[in-house]
Amino acid sequence: MIIVLRAHASEEDIRRIEETLKGIGLAAHISRGVERTIIGAIGDERKLVTDLFEGLPVVEKVLRVLSPYKLVSRDFQKEDTVIDVNGKKIGGSAIVLFAGPCSVEGREMMLEIGDSVARSGAAFLRGGAFKPRTSPYAFQGLKEEGLKCLAETRERTGLPVATELMDPRDIDVVARYADIIQIGARNMQNFRLLTEVGKLDKPVILKRGMSATIQELLMSAEYIASEGNRNIILCERGIRTFETITRNTFDVSAFPVLKSLTHLPVIADPSHAAGKASLVEPLAAAAIAAGADGLMIEVHNHPEKALSDGPQSLRPEVFERMIARLKNVAEAVGRTL
Amino acid sequence: MIIVLRAHASEEDIRRIEETLKGIGLAAHISRGVERTIIGAIGDERKLVTDLFEGLPVVEKVLRVLSPYKLVSRDFQKEDTVIDVNGKKIGGSAIVLFAGPCSVEGREMMLEIGDSVARSGAAFLRGGAFKPRTSPYAFQGLKEEGLKCLAETRERTGLPVATELMDPRDIDVVARYADIIQIGARNMQNFRLLTEVGKLDKPVILKRGMSATIQELLMSAEYIASEGNRNIILCERGIRTFETITRNTFDVSAFPVLKSLTHLPVIADPSHAAGKASLVEPLAAAAIAAGADGLMIEVHNHPEKALSDGPQSLRPEVFERMIARLKNVAEAVGRTL
Amino acid sequence: MIIVLRAHASEEDIRRIEETLKGIGLAAHISRGVERTIIGAIGDERKLVTDLFEGLPVVEKVLRVLSPYKLVSRDFQKEDTVIDVNGKKIGGSAIVLFAGPCSVEGREMMLEIGDSVARSGAAFLRGGAFKPRTSPYAFQGLKEEGLKCLAETRERTGLPVATELMDPRDIDVVARYADIIQIGARNMQNFRLLTEVGKLDKPVILKRGMSATIQELLMSAEYIASEGNRNIILCERGIRTFETITRNTFDVSAFPVLKSLTHLPVIADPSHAAGKASLVEPLAAAAIAAGADGLMIEVHNHPEKALSDGPQSLRPEVFERMIARLKNVAEAVGRTL
Amino acid sequence: MIIVLRAHASEEDIRRIEETLKGIGLAAHISRGVERTIIGAIGDERKLVTDLFEGLPVVEKVLRVLSPYKLVSRDFQKEDTVIDVNGKKIGGSAIVLFAGPCSVEGREMMLEIGDSVARSGAAFLRGGAFKPRTSPYAFQGLKEEGLKCLAETRERTGLPVATELMDPRDIDVVARYADIIQIGARNMQNFRLLTEVGKLDKPVILKRGMSATIQELLMSAEYIASEGNRNIILCERGIRTFETITRNTFDVSAFPVLKSLTHLPVIADPSHAAGKASLVEPLAAAAIAAGADGLMIEVHNHPEKALSDGPQSLRPEVFERMIARLKNVAEAVGRTL
Repeated sequence: MIIVLRAHASEEDIRRIEETLKGIGLAAHISRGVERTIIGAIGDERKLVTDLFEGLPVVEKVLRVLSPYKLVSRDFQKEDTVIDVNGKKIGGSAIVLFAGPCSVEGREMMLEIGDSVARSGAAFLRGGAFKPRTSPYAFQGLKEEGLKCLAETRERTGLPVATELMDPRDIDVVARYADIIQIGARNMQNFRLLTEVGKLDKPVILKRGMSATIQELLMSAEYIASEGNRNIILCERGIRTFETITRNTFDVSAFPVLKSLTHLPVIADPSHAAGKASLVEPLAAAAIAAGADGLMIEVHNHPEKALSDGPQSLRPEVFERMIARLKNVAEAVGRTL
Repeated sequence: MIIVLRAHASEEDIRRIEETLKGIGLAAHISRGVERTIIGAIGDERKLVTDLFEGLPVVEKVLRVLSPYKLVSRDFQKEDTVIDVNGKKIGGSAIVLFAGPCSVEGREMMLEIGDSVARSGAAFLRGGAFKPRTSPYAFQGLKEEGLKCLAETRERTGLPVATELMDPRDIDVVARYADIIQIGARNMQNFRLLTEVGKLDKPVILKRGMSATIQELLMSAEYIASEGNRNIILCERGIRTFETITRNTFDVSAFPVLKSLTHLPVIADPSHAAGKASLVEPLAAAAIAAGADGLMIEVHNHPEKALSDGPQSLRPEVFERMIARLKNVAEAVGRTL
Repeated sequence: MIIVLRAHASEEDIRRIEETLKGIGLAAHISRGVERTIIGAIGDERKLVTDLFEGLPVVEKVLRVLSPYKLVSRDFQKEDTVIDVNGKKIGGSAIVLFAGPCSVEGREMMLEIGDSVARSGAAFLRGGAFKPRTSPYAFQGLKEEGLKCLAETRERTGLPVATELMDPRDIDVVARYADIIQIGARNMQNFRLLTEVGKLDKPVILKRGMSATIQELLMSAEYIASEGNRNIILCERGIRTFETITRNTFDVSAFPVLKSLTHLPVIADPSHAAGKASLVEPLAAAAIAAGADGLMIEVHNHPEKALSDGPQSLRPEVFERMIARLKNVAEAVGRTL
Repeated sequence: MIIVLRAHASEEDIRRIEETLKGIGLAAHISRGVERTIIGAIGDERKLVTDLFEGLPVVEKVLRVLSPYKLVSRDFQKEDTVIDVNGKKIGGSAIVLFAGPCSVEGREMMLEIGDSVARSGAAFLRGGAFKPRTSPYAFQGLKEEGLKCLAETRERTGLPVATELMDPRDIDVVARYADIIQIGARNMQNFRLLTEVGKLDKPVILKRGMSATIQELLMSAEYIASEGNRNIILCERGIRTFETITRNTFDVSAFPVLKSLTHLPVIADPSHAAGKASLVEPLAAAAIAAGADGLMIEVHNHPEKALSDGPQSLRPEVFERMIARLKNVAEAVGRTL
């Protein structure tokens, strides 16, 4: 931590800050510049609250030297985390494919979509049983009924299931059916929920919040990791910007940036980023080219009748042809799909 | 709802959309322009999913005519909602003042701050017992212990207590001690939590999410209202933008815009918006001038030792002097503080 | 400037950076922390390109200690700049009022609006003769003809004229008629234009760009100041954010923040920020409450026929009543209007 | 154009709007819904100012049906524009490569970089002689001297030259040396400059402004096209968002979105978007995968000594290896590089 003092700071001010630092077990390194005096705090800065100094009238600014996360950082673990789910690996050289409807709308549709995405090469099934909807009047999901449909589809297709958890009170029922627990974008900073999934021994997909910085995403992952669960899959799904022509702005830089900062796998959700079926393929291709470890794609057998996210869902046959083309992109960057 | 068709839409396409509209109980009004055909759907558009049409290849765009919220809209209720808490009114001509520390850090500090803000004219006490913190390693609040300190301070000062609820599992304990329940910015779209507080008969402060539009804020209020609880206080606390010199950008337009769209009271949290003590007064004054119904201000007896948000907390004596000056601004716009 | 090295930096790396710093006349102050080595560069950091170090593989980040602007900073000049235009003062305790139409549309309308705003207490006339329009098919302004109308209105009313300059080739004609030159938001980083107005001896209103940070606004002011012209008036007119219900988000924090960083006067343009006539008064009141030194308001005698910005223009009688109320707000914060 | 009236609009209000529409040559189509009356304006809505109606008290909102640009739209021209520069085609199936330093810093460096990028497969040379710099104290470019270096490099390598024009007063000198004129992000809405390059018969690269929507980018292209110059190349170079870990957020969705809305070629500038050399390759790969027609890459023989943008410049040998890998990505999406 570096503390930059204002031009008018006195020797007495400097001495007092030195004392405070000592009090929390840090050494002070003082550097007197031409226009400003700077105090470097030496020791483990993670234990200190930068707030303690930011509020002081003689302090101009406080700059952190280290990142505020630790367990999820590349510094802490050099090699990539590879997560094994029933023998399928996430974070290795093969790019994994999660596919399925936005919401589970019924047993038949789930089985039909499951069969179809399994044939097209999906490794995991996705589908929401508990749905976060902006409107209280919109379809909220089939809840446990939906989870059962997912489980039955898993049995039939062999594809493990990823599904969203919205409420700590549902953790038992969701964990009973799901192979991977998903934390949605709107819950990325629902810290109590993060703490709970941190105690599970199931992998967690953590979606980036609509206005979360990459550092905040990593801090939320640190919440999960700090409780013991290190099987975390990060997911870029678009951020909120001034541009309104797309539902969200897909931050494709997040893949190389995250892969340099953390050892965790990072997947892409181009469906939510785009909000339009016609954009899913170019964004999926871009994600692969930029280093994503997986894709999560919304597939629906009747998008025009979908109870949620119809406009961005692909028909099974469109999905199948897209996957064939994306395999080429994966190979072009030295990976498989 | 207005459906704009692409240039190439055929008569058959138009007929099919008309059918679909009929199927959901809406009449179609067709208008053939020079370059585009437009279909107006007549009936209660709230019951329909615009998604049904957005996904169709012949549809260029779908425009909503009505707002997606109802109970909280000015159209639904013309006169202002005034909320009565132990005889104190929120949403009337008097601007109300919530004051207290960011976190409850102990009994003594709470009593000391409570005495002081009561003397300065605060109408409500604020203080967090459950704290949402970006870092898992930061102070997470005193929990029930903190709620007890708040209750004791209420007894001594007579000030009703507003405190945050983060988890549906804590609803009983928080409701037992709090007079007003606060939903934090990070939980504005925690729809399960909204549904739960919608079932309470206690007023709810709903803070705007960091990247929530005004319409989304109103949709979240609609969640609460749709469960029966109409005692909702909206709170503007700054939004996330590209500007980094302030912690958040205080969206002062939100006051007049919200007051025109909804009958609910709207208060300001300049402390979180600013992130710096020196900005609290100018932002509080701006909020009052723009039509805010209340202020929520962080006050701490020892900001330099605060376990959270020290840099933006005011010392009691600074708070007191500020209130004196803000009274003038309130009077200048025909209100009292 | 502080250079934070990566964990793996060697003694040889450190030595090499020390050399480079010496080469540009700066002393290096080395501080070896537990996890990182930090190099402080001592001397005038404004002369060095932080880029020189950011690109090095052993450098994790480079942090600036000083602001990159100088002449416009409070450090450089403690007391407020007060600009005198024909005896009227901008930046003093009186809040000044610029009023007039968005575009000059003709002689009659200009004279009529001029008379009216003069009566209501405006100190300066505003009106665009050269108009930056998003569409090439929209009205582009009356050009010199418009400037003449402004000059005639000034003669009749005694109000000095502020008008926009868009192109360095028009500088002579605009300077011939205008008392204050305005640089629009879209030209805030038109550095060649800034350099030209920096050579004039007329005051310049510099509007903040739609996505400009406060620091960038100050850097653009520094461009003007560095050429010799110190009579610069900064203008907050709303920034671009994800919120679409207002045309721009009025950044009311900019007033106290700018007043602390610079000695220049700062005015508000609530008309452009809001984009709606009904929001102009609350935003103007908020700006005054937060410390603005002036207001720029669009007034039109027939807003429903305006060739540009009609929806946000006030009728003269609405303007007059607003000013009466705003006087109270100005007094409440110890100023006059 | 669709005009949505407020709930309280009277028959008289409706009649008056109908009149106004007639007055500008448009027919009114009235649709009375349950909660709102809607008026559709039939005719060429481009000629009317939506402002005329937005300001009326009885109008709730005005919705445009058609895009405000015409000449650059896919509706106007179905087939892709392919621009021929000395026999090299931009916008065809081959992805073109612009490479060179950010700024021309001298003759030697330019010749050396030119030789090197020509060997690696660049089709065009880039390099700035007039540089828009945030600070007035930073290197501003070699001006005509720099243009001469570019011309000499073109003679030696055979690569046509693209370089930036910042000021209409420089148009003759820049046009004398350049094969393609570049309009920088900060000048995307410098409408006078757009009008001037619209009169040239040289291709123009138009960079997207930092906070420009895709629609605004197309409107700026329309400015150029409306003056007669249809040889316009659009360039995505990152937009400004709340994320600060990258200099800008590279909006990879812009490629498929623009290709659907316009017939113009669209290229990518991953160097400016990223701000870091290590991100250039993944972003370039993503751009190709998403449908970009070209890449503009900063290459410098001594990035650590560059006078601008060193941190994001690639060394020639790094550039060469990157191109080899990107060829595979281009092939994977059915194109060549």
